[in-house]
Amino acid sequence: MTTTILYVCVTCRGNPPAADDAPRPGARLLAAVEQKLGADGGDKGIALVPANCLSNCPRGCSAAVSASGKWTYVIGDLDPDRHAGDVIDFARQHRAHAEGVPEWRDRPEHVRKHTIARVPPVKPAAPSPAPSQEQS
Amino acid sequence: MTTTILYVCVTCRGNPPAADDAPRPGARLLAAVEQKLGADGGDKGIALVPANCLSNCPRGCSAAVSASGKWTYVIGDLDPDRHAGDVIDFARQHRAHAEGVPEWRDRPEHVRKHTIARVPPVKPAAPSPAPSQEQS
Repeated sequence: MTTTILYVCVTCRGNPPAADDAPRPGARLLAAVEQKLGADGGDKGIALVPANCLSNCPRGCSAAVSASGKWTYVIGDLDPDRHAGDVIDFARQHRAHAEGVPEWRDRPEHVRKHTIARVPPVKPAAPSPAPSQEQS
Repeated sequence: MTTTILYVCVTCRGNPPAADDAPRPGARLLAAVEQKLGADGGDKGIALVPANCLSNCPRGCSAAVSASGKWTYVIGDLDPDRHAGDVIDFARQHRAHAEGVPEWRDRPEHVRKHTIARVPPVKPAAPSPAPSQEQS
């Protein structure tokens, strides 16, 4: 099964923005995801990668899942104290689905309501799923 | 040089949404891009691909550029009557840049102001560019 890359934007200041001298909420989200993945015994199928700005600043914190030949999803409005588990769950669902398009009803609620964008795989291997389930 | 895929969301109803019996603004954007690319004599380095929902509905119309080994960008708030040229110009810049990260100052103004998200390449070949230029 293809490894899913889970990008976490570490430069994000959050909304409303954190104070300049406070730890960046994006860095806190990365730490939270890292800790939770570790507590679950690690996950060899998920590669956690810090990213410098996913350009979703007005709706940060942000994360994205991506994998070779699969759809890419960007998730926003993430709270480092609340949503690390949602991000990990969605990454696992993305990994388990051949096209990277987990069933809508199975996705964590935060992911359903705060998907910022999705992009087809670079080499389209399959037709686009029906759009009705992706309205956000 | 790697082909850049230019995805145009053809299911988009635009904002405010077009009437149910009107042509979908997303489909009109695709047609406008297609026509403009053709008028320019075509472009073998740009592959124009219709997509079913880029999940950026609140800020549609939407397009995305992507290429193997490069950053992916999602652009929103696109007006089919005004922004076909901007989307094509950005796709060409994306194709010309080794990492798919065109110089900020060179990007079309609409792209600078309405980038919805960007995602690193699936197989990171290069470090993330400095984040300061990507604040949106």
